[in-house]
Amino acid sequence: MVAKDMKVALLLDFYGDLLTEKQREALDFYYNEDLSLGEIGANLGISRQGVRDNIKRAEAVILEMEDKLGLAARFAEINQRLARIRSAVDVIDEKNMKIYRSNDINESIKLILNELERLNKLNE
Amino acid sequence: MVAKDMKVALLLDFYGDLLTEKQREALDFYYNEDLSLGEIGANLGISRQGVRDNIKRAEAVILEMEDKLGLAARFAEINQRLARIRSAVDVIDEKNMKIYRSNDINESIKLILNELERLNKLNE
Repeated sequence: MVAKDMKVALLLDFYGDLLTEKQREALDFYYNEDLSLGEIGANLGISRQGVRDNIKRAEAVILEMEDKLGLAARFAEINQRLARIRSAVDVIDEKNMKIYRSNDINESIKLILNELERLNKLNE
Repeated sequence: MVAKDMKVALLLDFYGDLLTEKQREALDFYYNEDLSLGEIGANLGISRQGVRDNIKRAEAVILEMEDKLGLAARFAEINQRLARIRSAVDVIDEKNMKIYRSNDINESIKLILNELERLNKLNE
């Protein structure tokens, strides 16, 4: 049995398109569907050993890519900073709603929240 | 002479780490330093044809990566949305400075601008 590296599950979203169809399916069944090597082999029409080879190779590709490109780490930092912006916007929104009631500020806040939402979707 | 695809120059920043040392240097000399194939060959100690091969191979790697991962396109969209957030924050800042003079809003704006600046650096 291959030991599960849960980092791989996260990285699959970022680098899955760099894998072969078989590699991607094997990883998906293994990490996201939690199937056994035997079950995955039956689904893909390959041997248990073939499944193991595909998973090992795919994991190596994915981990090497993150090592070189650092996409997941980069997007994690982006999301963290966007969350801080969101909190600061909420403070402004609350002050404005309670005290100043500026329409211009309100419109700007709405615009910012809309962009933040789209950015979050982009980084999922 | 290889025709210059200026998209490659931009993508080199994103995917350069996936190239061999020779490929990366050849592309850098070619696109960023604007050297001739002969000059690059002299610098790298390889033939003009070797330079051409390295550039062609490197361009293929880089363009395929962008096709599969779309990093440059993704970061271009992020930067565009961050710029819109920045404009909206400027509107809030101006209103607050001129009319409301809220310290809390001012502090929140400073925090947002700081995060935006760090995000811009991250996406360069």
